[in-house]
Amino acid sequence: MKRITIYDVAKEADVSLATVSRVINDSNVVREDTRIRVQEAIEKLGYKPNAIAQGLALSKTTTISIVMSEKLFAYNAKILNGLMDVAKIYNYNIMLHTTSKGISKMQDVIESIIKSRVDGVILFNDNFSEEELEVLHLYQIPMVVVGSKIEDKKVGNVGNVYVDFEKLAYELVNEYFEKGITDISLVEDKLNLSMMSQLRHGVERAFKEKGMEFKKYVSYDETYRSSYDFLSEYFKTHKPSELVITFRDSQAIAFLNACNEAHYQIPQDTQVISILDDKYLRMMRPTISSFNFPDYDMGAIAMRLLTKMLVNDDEVKDNKDIEIGYTFIQRQTTQPE
Amino acid sequence: MKRITIYDVAKEADVSLATVSRVINDSNVVREDTRIRVQEAIEKLGYKPNAIAQGLALSKTTTISIVMSEKLFAYNAKILNGLMDVAKIYNYNIMLHTTSKGISKMQDVIESIIKSRVDGVILFNDNFSEEELEVLHLYQIPMVVVGSKIEDKKVGNVGNVYVDFEKLAYELVNEYFEKGITDISLVEDKLNLSMMSQLRHGVERAFKEKGMEFKKYVSYDETYRSSYDFLSEYFKTHKPSELVITFRDSQAIAFLNACNEAHYQIPQDTQVISILDDKYLRMMRPTISSFNFPDYDMGAIAMRLLTKMLVNDDEVKDNKDIEIGYTFIQRQTTQPE
Repeated sequence: MKRITIYDVAKEADVSLATVSRVINDSNVVREDTRIRVQEAIEKLGYKPNAIAQGLALSKTTTISIVMSEKLFAYNAKILNGLMDVAKIYNYNIMLHTTSKGISKMQDVIESIIKSRVDGVILFNDNFSEEELEVLHLYQIPMVVVGSKIEDKKVGNVGNVYVDFEKLAYELVNEYFEKGITDISLVEDKLNLSMMSQLRHGVERAFKEKGMEFKKYVSYDETYRSSYDFLSEYFKTHKPSELVITFRDSQAIAFLNACNEAHYQIPQDTQVISILDDKYLRMMRPTISSFNFPDYDMGAIAMRLLTKMLVNDDEVKDNKDIEIGYTFIQRQTTQPE
Repeated sequence: MKRITIYDVAKEADVSLATVSRVINDSNVVREDTRIRVQEAIEKLGYKPNAIAQGLALSKTTTISIVMSEKLFAYNAKILNGLMDVAKIYNYNIMLHTTSKGISKMQDVIESIIKSRVDGVILFNDNFSEEELEVLHLYQIPMVVVGSKIEDKKVGNVGNVYVDFEKLAYELVNEYFEKGITDISLVEDKLNLSMMSQLRHGVERAFKEKGMEFKKYVSYDETYRSSYDFLSEYFKTHKPSELVITFRDSQAIAFLNACNEAHYQIPQDTQVISILDDKYLRMMRPTISSFNFPDYDMGAIAMRLLTKMLVNDDEVKDNKDIEIGYTFIQRQTTQPE
């Protein structure tokens, strides 16, 4: 049976929510005939205004912590939406923990998670160390790590919903090798160290297998503005690689603008790919090629996995590693097949 | 005195956090000499591993709910960062509630807030109705509304940290009137209805004072792609207004691209301003003029106000309305003074 809420009472009595609340809270600004109508509706429907608080005192609410770096809010919005929607469907409360330079260190967050006795944790695999994961694990808190693959999973009770960035980079570079292109740069991104390290390993593996050494792991800078300034200066004396791979939109856009002002033609003189997709890539001219990941689904799958682990961990024991696929999106910054 | 944490123990014993955890949890994978060293450190520092849970059972943790629309995550990232940092400094837990079409309606969120018995609420003023605010108020939950001004504040115990969008639009339009420009369009944004309505009122007021009627409140569409398609088609038979005001980056970019392809020169033939600033506006060519709001500060101020209201509401009784300033950022899509 559906639980009767204050909304049902308001509908039945044909009054506003505020009026029902006023009656419940014995406010004296309600007209007598309205008060009677609301009380009749309460009785008819069997609504118990205090049942909520009483029920809560007895039954435990399930709470899940989401931990992410503040810097990544804007980029992980869709993953967060997937997480939140599934949490909502299963009636879980979400506690948000963020890490930010100088204010909240990872160890404070771990302590706060342990203290608040949450039932499960969703981690974004950006700046957690293996050791920190292990501490949470030792406190018996079920966890799902979302984003990239956990490199060396020593700990047991951890789910992982990930994109295999190592494989993605390996396959991408090999495709360009087949087209005769070996002058390839990979641009560092300082926000996602674990993902960058996996991309780099994939590129290095591809080079090594062809008997070459990968030398063009380049570092621009953290911001668009400094990347752009760097590149504008760089292009006065150097020419761009045949293929430039960036992790994120802003560095691809900086590259695009700097090329344009240095009169390099894209994709004739140089091609550029942003690994992460984003609506802004479509808004640029030329539009920027990228990879599509089902971000929202990643979040939804991660939260669903955690809810299963919380209910019956044995059931999902052998299915805690879920790889998410990706597809290349051909736009104007790369040569079509 | 500083509370002794597991981190102090690890440092004292010169072992990892995981090792300390293992000793506390009686794991038998720890070497005997290490175990003794950790126990000595625990005794020396007076660390009580169970004190956390015991302490919590007695003292109440303060929890604040943040409520926002899922669609606005990416846009409100900086406000959220400000909120989170201040909450962290004051040791408050954050419960995240989101609303999203079809999955979690506002009334569910309100119910869930009331049920989880949080101490205070931060609301983003995008899709809350006055009536919903009133329900929360009747449950005696202190609130701060962040973003835009609450139009008609019937309820008492509510703080408001806002930008006066009505005034902003009024002043902006009057400046263009002084330059002799009266062909002005305001582009609707469906994500922020309350902010849009305030902008519209400001523009209408400016027109009315000059004895004119404002007729160009235009609706493109929700997404960049459909806005762009609409404009590309529109420009085949119409020319752009002298000044186009959009709320958000994506609609300004759609306008830019469509103008470019229809061979309208910016800012000679038409000028464009995006009210909200964003890093992508700087990345476009031409770069797009906008307004700067201290987003992070707005979040920080809102959370600080709420923490004050929670401790001693009387102290801030007459200072619950905090207006945040703004400055115009002249870029390439508008004519300089």
